[in-house]
This record gives sequence, C-alpha cells and structure tokens, in this order.
Amino acid sequence: MRTGEGLVRIGLAGVGYWGPNLLRNFVQVRRCSVEAACDLRDDRLEYVRDHYPWVRTTKRIEDLLASPDLDAVVLATDPPTHHAFARAALGAGKHVLVEKPLAMRAEECRELIRLAAARRLVLMVGHTFEYNAAVGQVKRYLDEGLLGEVYYAYAQRLNLGLVRSNTDVVWSLAPHDLSILNYWFGVPPETVSARGLSFLQPEARIADVAYLLLSYPGGRFAHVHLSWLDPNKVRQMTVVGSKKMLVYDDVSASEKIRIYDKGVTRKNLSHLDGYDDFGKFQLIHRAGDLLIPKLEFEEPLKLECEDFVRCVKEGGTPRSDGRSGLRVVRVLEAASRSMADGGAPATIDWDPGDL
Amino acid sequence: MRTGEGLVRIGLAGVGYWGPNLLRNFVQVRRCSVEAACDLRDDRLEYVRDHYPWVRTTKRIEDLLASPDLDAVVLATDPPTHHAFARAALGAGKHVLVEKPLAMRAEECRELIRLAAARRLVLMVGHTFEYNAAVGQVKRYLDEGLLGEVYYAYAQRLNLGLVRSNTDVVWSLAPHDLSILNYWFGVPPETVSARGLSFLQPEARIADVAYLLLSYPGGRFAHVHLSWLDPNKVRQMTVVGSKKMLVYDDVSASEKIRIYDKGVTRKNLSHLDGYDDFGKFQLIHRAGDLLIPKLEFEEPLKLECEDFVRCVKEGGTPRSDGRSGLRVVRVLEAASRSMADGGAPATIDWDPGDL
Amino acid sequence: MRTGEGLVRIGLAGVGYWGPNLLRNFVQVRRCSVEAACDLRDDRLEYVRDHYPWVRTTKRIEDLLASPDLDAVVLATDPPTHHAFARAALGAGKHVLVEKPLAMRAEECRELIRLAAARRLVLMVGHTFEYNAAVGQVKRYLDEGLLGEVYYAYAQRLNLGLVRSNTDVVWSLAPHDLSILNYWFGVPPETVSARGLSFLQPEARIADVAYLLLSYPGGRFAHVHLSWLDPNKVRQMTVVGSKKMLVYDDVSASEKIRIYDKGVTRKNLSHLDGYDDFGKFQLIHRAGDLLIPKLEFEEPLKLECEDFVRCVKEGGTPRSDGRSGLRVVRVLEAASRSMADGGAPATIDWDPGDL
Amino acid sequence: MRTGEGLVRIGLAGVGYWGPNLLRNFVQVRRCSVEAACDLRDDRLEYVRDHYPWVRTTKRIEDLLASPDLDAVVLATDPPTHHAFARAALGAGKHVLVEKPLAMRAEECRELIRLAAARRLVLMVGHTFEYNAAVGQVKRYLDEGLLGEVYYAYAQRLNLGLVRSNTDVVWSLAPHDLSILNYWFGVPPETVSARGLSFLQPEARIADVAYLLLSYPGGRFAHVHLSWLDPNKVRQMTVVGSKKMLVYDDVSASEKIRIYDKGVTRKNLSHLDGYDDFGKFQLIHRAGDLLIPKLEFEEPLKLECEDFVRCVKEGGTPRSDGRSGLRVVRVLEAASRSMADGGAPATIDWDPGDL
Repeated sequence: MRTGEGLVRIGLAGVGYWGPNLLRNFVQVRRCSVEAACDLRDDRLEYVRDHYPWVRTTKRIEDLLASPDLDAVVLATDPPTHHAFARAALGAGKHVLVEKPLAMRAEECRELIRLAAARRLVLMVGHTFEYNAAVGQVKRYLDEGLLGEVYYAYAQRLNLGLVRSNTDVVWSLAPHDLSILNYWFGVPPETVSARGLSFLQPEARIADVAYLLLSYPGGRFAHVHLSWLDPNKVRQMTVVGSKKMLVYDDVSASEKIRIYDKGVTRKNLSHLDGYDDFGKFQLIHRAGDLLIPKLEFEEPLKLECEDFVRCVKEGGTPRSDGRSGLRVVRVLEAASRSMADGGAPATIDWDPGDL
Repeated sequence: MRTGEGLVRIGLAGVGYWGPNLLRNFVQVRRCSVEAACDLRDDRLEYVRDHYPWVRTTKRIEDLLASPDLDAVVLATDPPTHHAFARAALGAGKHVLVEKPLAMRAEECRELIRLAAARRLVLMVGHTFEYNAAVGQVKRYLDEGLLGEVYYAYAQRLNLGLVRSNTDVVWSLAPHDLSILNYWFGVPPETVSARGLSFLQPEARIADVAYLLLSYPGGRFAHVHLSWLDPNKVRQMTVVGSKKMLVYDDVSASEKIRIYDKGVTRKNLSHLDGYDDFGKFQLIHRAGDLLIPKLEFEEPLKLECEDFVRCVKEGGTPRSDGRSGLRVVRVLEAASRSMADGGAPATIDWDPGDL
Repeated sequence: MRTGEGLVRIGLAGVGYWGPNLLRNFVQVRRCSVEAACDLRDDRLEYVRDHYPWVRTTKRIEDLLASPDLDAVVLATDPPTHHAFARAALGAGKHVLVEKPLAMRAEECRELIRLAAARRLVLMVGHTFEYNAAVGQVKRYLDEGLLGEVYYAYAQRLNLGLVRSNTDVVWSLAPHDLSILNYWFGVPPETVSARGLSFLQPEARIADVAYLLLSYPGGRFAHVHLSWLDPNKVRQMTVVGSKKMLVYDDVSASEKIRIYDKGVTRKNLSHLDGYDDFGKFQLIHRAGDLLIPKLEFEEPLKLECEDFVRCVKEGGTPRSDGRSGLRVVRVLEAASRSMADGGAPATIDWDPGDL
Repeated sequence: MRTGEGLVRIGLAGVGYWGPNLLRNFVQVRRCSVEAACDLRDDRLEYVRDHYPWVRTTKRIEDLLASPDLDAVVLATDPPTHHAFARAALGAGKHVLVEKPLAMRAEECRELIRLAAARRLVLMVGHTFEYNAAVGQVKRYLDEGLLGEVYYAYAQRLNLGLVRSNTDVVWSLAPHDLSILNYWFGVPPETVSARGLSFLQPEARIADVAYLLLSYPGGRFAHVHLSWLDPNKVRQMTVVGSKKMLVYDDVSASEKIRIYDKGVTRKNLSHLDGYDDFGKFQLIHRAGDLLIPKLEFEEPLKLECEDFVRCVKEGGTPRSDGRSGLRVVRVLEAASRSMADGGAPATIDWDPGDL
C-alpha cells in the first residue's frame, strides 16, 4: 500500500476515457498515493480493481469528498459536472485538479478561484500541453526572440473519433490550442471571430468543424482549425515571425519542432519554381536552412501530475492554475458568442483579476 | 524556323517572371510556333534572343497586335494591363491566352467574353492547375463519389517570396485555389467571408495573410489560407467526405494524392491515444487504410499550352475559358468586399450567363 | 499485494536497461504477480522499491531460485550469464523467460531446451519483435502470397548508443532481425556471409558496423545492415517480391507498413526521369499504388509477457520458445565464423531437432 | 539557326533513353549549337525533327564523324559501342563526351585517354552526379571536416524499370555511386567485395540485385546496395563520421541533405526507448539536432553540358574527365571479378597514371 505520512493521498473521480491515464501516472509519481477511485459504471470500477487492487472503489463521489484520509481530489468527470464537484471538494478542504475545461462558464471559474484562495487550497486545471516538452521549448524560443517579431500563429487539431452530443468541437478540442497560445504569447486574445460547420448533427447545430481567428494586443493574430471529421490525425501549430518560422507537430515522434530560417534579402527571377504568381514584384525573403532540434521528451501528463503533487506538498501555484483555466473558458465563451452571431468578432474585456 | 502553313503563330507579351515558362513550353508544343516576344526591359528581351534566337523581339506591344503573321497573343503582363491588352488583341483578331486573373473586375471579364464570342476567337485564362494531373484525378474521384458525401475542403497556399505593393495575397495566390475549387465542385461559391492580415505593409492595408471561408450550394464549405510570409512552402488541399478524405499535396514529388479511409463504426476506449478529450462520447469513425495512387504526371503548363493551340486550330472551348476566369474574378471581388467589411459574408448573385 | 492462488508468481533478475520494461509490463498483465526482483546494484533495487513497493528485493539471484513461492524467473541479466542462470532456474523447477540471446553458444541452448522438456517447464526467449503487431501482419501477408514470389529481404538496424566492450554489434542487434526473418520465412538460413567494421575499438576488433548476407532454401536471400554509429535511428525491413514490395518501418508511428504495388508491364521512354541508365533495355515493371494499412498496435512486450503467463498457466509452447532462441544463436555463431574468415560464407547444417 | 563563328558545333549519337536529355540541355547551353543527331531508329530521328527542326538527322554515325562542321561528338549509344565510337571520333579530331561507363574495359579507357591527350582534345564522361549541387555541397562538407573523422558511407540505388539482358545491375547503376564516392573521398577504393543476386534471369546469371563493400586507404569503407527490383525508388547515400552523419537523398525535392549531429557524451538508462539491447553498456553518443541546409539547385546535366562546352572553348579538364571514367571502370571490373569469385575481395592496384 502506497500510503504513509507525508504522501499526498488522492481520490480520482471519473475513470472513463481520460481517467485511466491520470491513474496510471499518479501511481508512478513519487510522494503521492492513489487511495480511492469513483465512477458510476461497474466495468470502470472493475478496471481499477483489476489493475490497481489496492485502490478502493466507489460509485458515490460523496464518499471521496467525505473521506478524511484524502488530501486531494482529481476530477475527470463530464465537463458539466466540473464546477459543482470542484466546489464541493474545495468546500470539503481538498486540493483539486480538474480536467479541462475548468468549468462551463467564466463566473463558475471565478468562484472556484476565490474559494481555493480563501481556503489556501491548490486549484489546478489539466491543461496537459502546458507540460509538454515541445510546447515549453517553443515558449523559450519565443521569449528569447528567436523568431524575430512574431506575426501570427495557426493551429490545426483534426482527427476522427469523439463526436459528442452535449458539446461542440470548440469546447472539446480548442482548450488545448487556447491554453498553449495563452502560454506562448503571455497574454490572452482581445477578440475572437468563430465560424462553426455542422455536418453530422446539423439540426442541433453542433459544430464538428470550426475556425477561430483570434486577435492579440500589438497586432498579433492566431487562427485555429478544429475538426472531428478528418481521418488524418493532425495536431500542428505554426508561429511565423519576421526572422524565422516554427512548426510544432505533436504527432511526429522525432521531429516535433521544425525551425525554418529565412535567407538574405535579394531578387530572384526563378523560372523553375514559377507556378505561383505574375508580373511586377519585389522579392524580400527566401527560405533558408531548416533546423530540427533534439528534444528530451517526458510524458506531459506525468509532469502535470508531479506539478500538482509538488504544489500540494510545498505550496505554490501550478503552471496551469485556476486563472489559466478561467482565461481559456473566457475565450471559449467568446467563440460561442461569435459563432452564434455568424462570425462577427466578439470582444473580451479582460479584468485585471483574470490575468 | 518553326513557321509554315498550319502552325499557330504566337506572340508573347511579358517575359518577366512567368513569361519564360510559357515561352519554353510553347516552343516545345507541336503545331505552333513562337514568332515574337515583347517586354519593356532590355535584359528580358536579351534573355529571349539568347535562348531562342529565331524569336523576334520588341518593346512595343502594338507591334505584336499589328503583326499580320501572328494568329494568337499570350499575355503574361502585369494584371492591371490584362483587360486593355486582351481587348486590343481580340479587336485585332488575335486569339488570346491571358495569365490569371483574367482582369481586375468582373465587368471587364464579361466584356472580353462578349468580344471573343462575337469575333469567334479563343479566349483562355491561364488557370494552370486545371491542367494538373493530380487536380484532374481528384476531379474524377469526386465525380465518382469516392469520398461519399463531400463535407468540406480546405486549402493552404503558403510561401515566402513575392510581396507586392500593387495587389494583396488574395488576388495574387487565391486564383489557384478558387479555380481548382470551382473545377472540383462544378459550381462556384454563394458567399465568401474573408479576413486579411497586414504585417509588412500595414499602413497600405495590403494583406500578406488571408483566410477565406466559402459556402457552396447544398451545405458544402471550403476554407483557404493564403500567406506570403511562411518560409515553409505549402500547397495543400484537403477534401473531407463522409466515407473518405483526400489530401492533394502539390509540393510532394511522389505522393501528390493521399486517400484516407474510415474504418467501421465502433466504440473504443483508448487509454493510450487519449490526450484529446473528456467525458461522455460516442465513437463513430476511426481512421482506416491510407492509399497513395500512382499518377502519371505531365507538366501542367505544357498541357495548358496544348489546349490553347488545339482550340485555335480545331475550334472548341478551352478548359479554362473566359467564363472560368470570370467566375474566379467574381469570387475575388467578393473576398475584397468582405475583407473591407471586417469579414462579414459577401454574397455573390450568379448570373446564368456567368456559369 | 497481487498474490493469491492461481497467480503466476514471478521473480525478475536484472533491473538495468531492459528489466524495468519487463517489470512494468508484468505488473500490468493479469493472472500473474511480480514478487521479487534481484540486481547487484543498490540504485536499481531502490528504483524497484520506489515504484513497486510491494516487490521484495535482493542482491542474490540464489534467493530467487530458492524461493518456494516463485513459479517463474525472468532473466534480464548480462548475456554471458544467461545459460548458467537459466539452467539453475530450470533445475530449481522454475519456468524461465530469458532475454535474447538465449545463450552464447548453440550447445548451451540445446541443453536448456532438453532440461525444460525433461522437467515440463516453459522455456521462452525474449524475441519481442515476434509479438509486434506489424511483424505479425507482415507474416500474414507473406503466408497469403500477397507479394507474389518473394525474392529477397533487407534490414537496417542503425542507431547511436550502446557501444559495448563485451559483445559486438552482431550479437547485440542482429537477434531482432534474425528472429523476425526466421519467423517470416518459416525456415532459417543455410549460409551466412558477414563482414564487420571496427571503428571505435579497432584493436579489440569489436565490430560497430556489420553486413550480413543470408541465403535461404529456394534461392531467397536476406541482407542485414547493423550499426552502433549512425545518429539517425533506422529500424526498417523490406521484402521484395515478384508482385509487390513491402516496407516495415518500426520507427514510424502511423505508417509502420507500406506496400508498394507494381503496375502493368509496358515500355516507357521517360525523358524526365532519366538520370539512371543507358542504352538498350526492356521495361518490365513500373511502380504502382502505395498502400499503408491501418494497424491496431499493442505494446509487443506486453503481449510477450502475456504469452509467457498463458503458457505457464495453461501449458503450451510460447511463440518464441527455446528452439526459436537456438535458431538465432546458430546464425549468430555462423556470422561470427564468417567474419573471422573475411566474409567467406559459413554454412549451417540444421539438425531436424533444431527446427 | 544557332550556328556561327565561335559556337561549339555538336553532333549527338544516340537519341534513345538518355540522348533526348542531352539534346534538350545542349540546346539551352550558351556558346554551342546542336547541328546533327544520329540514331538507328526512324522514330527517334522523327522525334528530333519534330522538336528541333533545325537539327539535321542521320542513321550513320560515320556522317557525324566525317562532318567538317562539327567540333564535338556526344555519345549516348549502347555502352559496348562507347569505346569504338569514341576512338573514331577522337581520331576524326572531335572533342568527345561519352555517357557512362566510359568503356567496358579499363584498357579501352586508357587508350581513349592517351588518344585525347595526344590530339589535345577534350575527353569527358557523363558522370552527371559530379555536377549535382547536393553532391558538390557534401564534397565541401567533407573537405571542411564537418563530420569529424569519416568512418563509412553507404548507398542505396533501388528502383524498378530497366532490366537489361546485356549488362547487370552493377554496370548499369553503380557508376553513379562509384563516381560520387571517388569524388567525395578523393581517392578510389583498394578492394571490392561484391555479391550479386539473380532473380529474373538466373540462368544467364545477370544480377538484378547487388551488394558491394569497398575498402579505402586509412580504414574507410563504403557499402553499395543496387537493385532493379524494388518498386520504391531510393537514391540515398549516407556518410557517418565521428562528429556528425550526413544523408544525401537524391529523391527528395526539398530535403536533399540532412545533417545529424551527435550530442554530448553521457550515460542514460532509458526505459522508454529500450527495445534494442541488453546488459552492461557504456553510452557514448546520443543523437542531436538535425539540420537541413538550403540548397540552390540547378539541373546537373545542364552544368555538365556547360562544363564540356567551356573546356572545348577555353581548354582545361572537365570535372569528370577520362581518368574519372577510368577509375569507375576499374572498380566495376573488380566488382565483376569478386562476384565471379563468390564475393572474395578483389584488389585494385592503382597505377599512378590512373589517379
């Protein structure tokens, strides 16, 4: 049994799609112990008992919240339940890690943030990509100014699979891109224009494809393409600057970051590569070398779990804290408003307390 | 010397960026002969004399138009000159091939179409991609219904290079994607929403990056991402259908078309590939096999030149005729309207005569 | 604690490089329980206690062999120890899984096989690739005759890293390729020619690069290129047949198998693709479509561990049994003979009992 | 007509597979003019007249040799004819460019070299790859010592297509790799071991697959894999050094050279990437960054033709001169000897005059 003084004792709620990954990682993280797991379905609880026989199981989340031997609760339940369960857990004095999105409304996020602060508890949201080694490397490149002036970024998150009836592709997939962009740029967007396309559930107007255009202070932009319909899995983000361009490809095993240089300025009347254009022009850039840096990769979810345990043990604020969750939810809300308004830009007035 | 009865005798105006490609191809096409070339710059005319010593050169386009020994004129001049030069050439009884865009306004296109029809002359626009073997293969796949119901398409045309001061990235690059989409779908779009981003020439508001969202009859959509700022050259178009998805990658030498299948419907609680999502879901698709068909590739510009010569010799309408040019220019005009209007959808009322 | 009636109780010897992978997998496999682990180094035992606190640890392998509560022993120790430890374990009545190579000499392998048979114990060698989903799929393709007549195969196993002083690149890396080839072809090679190149330890003549050419009954051949010096990781095997060719790329995440078709026979005087050759020729094949089948992938080591547990519980012979280990060791011995003889072919006389 | 004083007037013999490429390039090269072409087949001569109507055609090579208005003869005829035709052309006072291989025997090559020297005529062999921009860039990297100490190189030249009955895959394809290796290393090999596999014409023992192992002074090695049977086209050469490794991929359009770095020395007990090995080890390298340099690419054959014209006009020795052709033929002869001898190494005693 992995209990004992000084260990952070964890209860997990939700062992469906994502919960087992949390379970597997927390079991391997030091200084903590998974004590209990909760799910409504018998087969999921049996899964837990089969793989982790020392973890006690229950169908009632109240059992977790009422357990005096638990220090923290991890919520991998349905998003509409996040707010209520997290509030109850904080109320019961538990540290909380919630899967993304933190809640379904900004006001709910703010309530959780206030509650955690008042009770001096850790509130963390599972923005796993903020713990991804490639994402962190890109952050360092941007902070160093490697790309020169950053013009714009674009993301594609495309795949088959999880078509939902209770949420659209924006709320399901965009939290990844939005949390990454907020992290990279150090500031959230000011406006969002969003268009959603509904092919599988048109009558319910649940978008399976969406396009977001985000504007940031200082004239930066980001564009996000989301889809549930594409059989080719793509998870790619590109940042274009005045000096270099960078592609982060999450699907690639060995070439997660590609850095494209621009060569010296000059004129070039290429006759061989000439299918693109016409007439009078001034050539100012040309493509240069391509560098693929070596990354030391660790499972991001493991690092996320470790950050949670560290904050609980030592105090401190996790990288993806409650405010990080709030900032993503506010952009999601604005995207929903813009989609409902035919793509008209929706402005977000950032409160200093949100940042 | 390649003259003689029965040969189509051609004069080329504009030997800058694209003109040399036309010259090289027309020289190799049967049943025609390049007789004369025109450009304002001495070095370009010297280029012609150096490589093709039998071609006579001039700085005055009037010399071409007035030459009784020329049957056809090919215009690779600056786009703003297309309309005036093409009108004059048709007026002088010459068959005309104009580089894209056919003109800068739809009304100008219509005038050229009327003029060519009245004088029974060939009017062709250089939509080279309509002659690309991969584009044609995709057209056949779509007509056969290989993809099932077509949901949406998206295109990326990104590169460094030709930043212009007299036109934006939409008018410069989008004609390729728009002519391909019109060809594939067999019908032009009904509305266009467009957003342009101006980084290099912000005061002039000349967009170097643009996003277009096009809606088609029957609920289809297409999205186009254009950029002059990206050091990594991308020319990719994807079509997503209910059964399969298809990627056309113009940059790839050996894998220009990739066809992604969808497997049988089933539930799958993957714990390994699970970084994307949460909660309750129904899994309806999964990725299946990937097929990369073998293509026999010929230089598209050569096929375009052959089509022009064939139509001049035998009568008939080229694949990219004046109406094809008009349909592209109408969408470009609508995109400019939408961009000026902050991205609000611009509707195009198609006249039966345009289609 | 994962003990209990009916569970296969396992002791692991060797927790260095590969042992932790075995540990992680056996912990997750049903119907078994890891009870004890043995290593000479304190830090490795601490690693075990830290991650798997219920596993008892020891520095003496004799403790494992003498434990009446252990049903099976897994050996991930240094190869020169394999034979002695496996013999002792079988002598103590334990089922045995040995990492590859089974032993350093064929005669040692035969002794272990005899001993296991006499005592009705499972003897298994860790040829993990025989449990790889892609390798198995290729086996099915070959058995179905998908490729037509199989002409030859070639393998590349190249990487940086594990330069050894007590074994060469052949004994270290070739067991993977040899076990796969034996599995695919259903018959082991008749002769082996091998050349080794020694760059890092030339005085000791320990090869860091080696080339093997293997001949099989019926005129088939296989070629294997092994290296410890290549910074680009390659693990690729190709099988060329009269109808199709197949590439198995173990490094690729999503395209592990690529099947290249051959098109219809015809003449083709290509002027574009003509850098290769001269003069008079008859063109009989051309490249055709490329198919990348979808694979359901499971961790091969997990399947290997499950096969071991199943055979212990239910009886039966594991896929990579002692004879499979013997067949690989015999080819390794022949390769060493050929290398010592400057590359002259070394013949292997297969005893019916080896097959 | 491209004649006139000062132009190098060229006659081409052989317009089959490769000849049209020479024709197309010489037509575009400055300071020369293609005057005549010769082939035995009517359809090939019609091809010439159709595309280049000013070139006179003949079926008799004697017509070329006897033409006083020709300065040079280009031979793209069957390899067995190279020696006789080149000797006759040199005898007639013509400069000569011969397709590879220069001749079928070293003694024939030496005779041509002596004859050209005696008559002060240019003798050049068409080792096109010596004019390839990527090959030249690799040569500069090697001369600069970018890779550190060079350990070994390996090449794969695999494709479908040109199965011959009068020559094997070695004589057909290896001249490319051998001329590149000689150029890169600056010294030819001392010994060659070769094995050929005959699948399509086994009774004639014409190899369609071959493996060459070449040893060079100073302990370097090179390995070459050749095949006519592989549907996937591969033309790749790798050079492995003590500091870096370099891959030259001729098939790639945009990534022709990839440079793999090695990281700092250190120990690493990786548990994740651990499918390869066992036991005791010392880790001395790890893979580092990957750099893909930007290349300015020009058609190699055009540069080759320009080099020929320059040497004829200005004097001087072409990069791929007669000695370059001789050095390749000597290695081919040694490879044939080794193949006939079951793969036993064949030594080449280099005469100072050959180098």
